[in-house]
Amino acid sequence: MYCISVSYKKAPAEIRGRFAFDAREKEALAGMLRESGTVDGCVVLCTCNRSEVYLSGGKAAIRALQEAVASIKAVPQQELLKYLNIYSGERATAHLFKVCCGFDSMVLGEDEILGQVRDAYQAALEKKHVDYELNVLFQRAIACAKRIRTDTRISTTPLSVATLVANEVFHFPAQGIKRVMIIGITGKMGTTIAKNILAKPGIQVTGTVRSHHAVLDFAPKGDRVKLVDYRDRYQYMGEMDIVISATTSPHYTITRDELARAMAGREPDRPRLLIDVAVPLDMDPEAAKLPGVTLRDIDYFDTLSKNNEQIRLKELDRARAIMEEDLDGAVKEILFHPYIGRLAELRTAFAGRSPESLLFMIRDRVDSEELKVVLKVLDGLETWVKEA
Amino acid sequence: MYCISVSYKKAPAEIRGRFAFDAREKEALAGMLRESGTVDGCVVLCTCNRSEVYLSGGKAAIRALQEAVASIKAVPQQELLKYLNIYSGERATAHLFKVCCGFDSMVLGEDEILGQVRDAYQAALEKKHVDYELNVLFQRAIACAKRIRTDTRISTTPLSVATLVANEVFHFPAQGIKRVMIIGITGKMGTTIAKNILAKPGIQVTGTVRSHHAVLDFAPKGDRVKLVDYRDRYQYMGEMDIVISATTSPHYTITRDELARAMAGREPDRPRLLIDVAVPLDMDPEAAKLPGVTLRDIDYFDTLSKNNEQIRLKELDRARAIMEEDLDGAVKEILFHPYIGRLAELRTAFAGRSPESLLFMIRDRVDSEELKVVLKVLDGLETWVKEA
Repeated sequence: MYCISVSYKKAPAEIRGRFAFDAREKEALAGMLRESGTVDGCVVLCTCNRSEVYLSGGKAAIRALQEAVASIKAVPQQELLKYLNIYSGERATAHLFKVCCGFDSMVLGEDEILGQVRDAYQAALEKKHVDYELNVLFQRAIACAKRIRTDTRISTTPLSVATLVANEVFHFPAQGIKRVMIIGITGKMGTTIAKNILAKPGIQVTGTVRSHHAVLDFAPKGDRVKLVDYRDRYQYMGEMDIVISATTSPHYTITRDELARAMAGREPDRPRLLIDVAVPLDMDPEAAKLPGVTLRDIDYFDTLSKNNEQIRLKELDRARAIMEEDLDGAVKEILFHPYIGRLAELRTAFAGRSPESLLFMIRDRVDSEELKVVLKVLDGLETWVKEA
Repeated sequence: MYCISVSYKKAPAEIRGRFAFDAREKEALAGMLRESGTVDGCVVLCTCNRSEVYLSGGKAAIRALQEAVASIKAVPQQELLKYLNIYSGERATAHLFKVCCGFDSMVLGEDEILGQVRDAYQAALEKKHVDYELNVLFQRAIACAKRIRTDTRISTTPLSVATLVANEVFHFPAQGIKRVMIIGITGKMGTTIAKNILAKPGIQVTGTVRSHHAVLDFAPKGDRVKLVDYRDRYQYMGEMDIVISATTSPHYTITRDELARAMAGREPDRPRLLIDVAVPLDMDPEAAKLPGVTLRDIDYFDTLSKNNEQIRLKELDRARAIMEEDLDGAVKEILFHPYIGRLAELRTAFAGRSPESLLFMIRDRVDSEELKVVLKVLDGLETWVKEA
C-alpha cells in the first residue's frame, strides 16, 4: 500500500482546503487512477485536518496519483510536493493505523477520526475501489481502533473542565427534570458547559445575561434554555438543583446570605450542587455550609483533570501497545498472503528432501541474523507442536 | 564466549604492565578458573598494547575471571573495573576478530598481532585449556587474518619514508654486493633507514659521522657497516651504488661538481642512485644531470606514501568486508552447533505434521519481522534446492 497525505503537520488550513476532495472529485480521481493501469484500489480520506489517499498497486502508482491530484486540483506537481508526505509499504500501513487510532491527530487518542476513516472506506467499498490489500488493512485498522475504544479508557477520560462539569451535572441525583442555572451562559466557558449539558435529555437550563440584547451563540432544540436577567438570579435560584457560575466578575455572583434567603421555604435541606469554575471565585465559600449544599470550585476540577491526564497517559501507552500488536498482525497477513497460493508449489520443490538437508542448506546460505531467527522459530515450533 | 580486555584504549602503559601475565601467572589463572567450575576454557593474550582473557562458560564465568585476576594481581576489583572492557557473546567474538585482524591495533591492519594471537591460542591448546567454542572461534579468527594478509595488500603497502627508501634500495640493480652510503647514519631517519636496509643480505653500508666518538644505536651483525668521517665522504662516494642523505644540515652534503670528481675514473657512466630525504635538500638537484645518476628527493617519497595511503584505505575496506564475512560464518557455526545433536529430536517432534500446518503455526506465533525472514528463507530454499 501507498499513502500520500496533506495534513495539519505540514500544511496550513488554507492549503488543506485546496486539497479537500468532494464526492465528484473523488470519483474523477478513482477513474484516472484506474485508467493509469498501475493502481489496483484507492481510498480517499478527507477531514478538516487531513486529505489522504491510500492506494495499492505497482511502483508507478504513486506517480499516477501525483499526476491525477495535480490535474484535478490544477496545482503544479512541484507545489504539491511541498506539502505532501508519502508513505509506502509497511510505513503506509503503520500510518493508516496511527491515523485510524487517533495517534496522528492533534488531540492524541481522539476517536472522531475512526468514524471518518470508516466512512471513507465504506464509500470506496461501495464504488468497488477496494482491492484485497486495502480491504484487509482498512478492516484491521478500523477493528483495532474499535478495540482501543472498548479496551482502554481514553475516550471516557475527559480532560476539559467543561466536560468534567457536565459529567458532574449528569451524575448529580435529582427528581424529575434536573434544573440547572448557568450564571454567565453567554461567556465562552458558560456556552461550552451549556452545550455539553444539553447533550443529554431531562435537563432544563436557566442562563443569566447582563443585557436584554444578549443572545446565545448556539441554538438549543425546543425550549430547554431560558434566559433571565442577572439581577433577578436569586428569584430563580431556590428552584435549582444545580447552579454553575462561570463569569469573569471580580465580585461574588452568589453570597451565603442571599443564597440562604433564596432557598428558604423551598425544601431548604434538599441536595443542591454549586459549581464555581471562575477565577477569581464567583461563589462565597461560606455558601458550602448551608444545609444540603455541596460546592465544587475550580481547584476540584483542576485536580480531576490532572488525575485524568495521568490515567489518559497510561491508557495511551496501552492503546499504543494494542495498535502495535494489531498492526503487526496486519503486516503479517499481507506478507503471508502470496504464499497461500504457493503452498503446493513449495511442497513439490521440497519433496524428497530431508528436513536435515534443508536445514543445512539454510545454514550455509543465510547470514547469522537470519539463522538466529530460523533457529528461534525452530525452537518455537517444537514447543507449539507439543502444545497443539 | 566472554572477553575481558585491558588495552591501550583505556589503560596507560604502566597499568597495562601491571596486568601482563607471565607463563606462571597464566597457569595459575587457568587453574583458578577451572576450579571455579563455571569456566570451560580460556586463552590469555598479552602484548605490549593489551592483556586479554578470552573464556567460555556459564554466566558466572566473568565474575570468576575478575576474582581470579584481582587475586593473582593483588588488585582490588574496583580498581580493575576502571581499566577493563568486558565483551560477551557475539560482541566478544567480534572483538576477537577485530584484534586478530589488526582492526583493534594502533596501526590499523598491522599483522604482528596475528602471530601473537596464534601463539596465545597454541599455548592454551597445549595446556588443554581450549574447549569447542574457543577452538572454533580462534581457528576461524586466525584463518580470517591470514586470508586478509594473503588477499589484500595492506601488509605490503608501506607508508613510512624509511620503508619506502629501503624498498627503493632493494629494487635498484647492482652487480655483486650493493654498496650504500648513508650520510647522517646516526640521525633518527638515518638509523631507521640503515636498520631497514640491513634486514636484507648482500648490502654493505658506509655511514658518515661528524665525530670520532659517534656510535650507532643499534648493533649490526658482522662488519656490514663501516663508519667514516663526514669530511672524507667524497673519498668513498665513487664506489657507491647508492648514496642516501638524511641530515639536518642547512648546506648541501653533495654538490654536483664534487660528486662528478668523486665519480671520475670509477665507471663514471654506471647507474647510481641518489636518495635525498632531507628538508632542506641535502643534494644539489644539478647532480641528477650527471651521467647514470638518478636522484629521488623527499617529494618523490611523499607522493609514494600518499598513493600508498589511498591504496591502503581501500585495502582496509576490503579487509573489513572479509572480516565481517568470516565473523558471520563463525557466529553461525556457534549458533548452529547445539542443533546438530538435536536433529533426531526435531524430526520426531515434527513427524506427521504437514509443512503447511507448520507454516501456518509459524505465521500465527511469530512477529512480522520474524515472518519476513522465514518467508525470505523459504523463497531462498526453493531456489537453492533447484540449484543443488
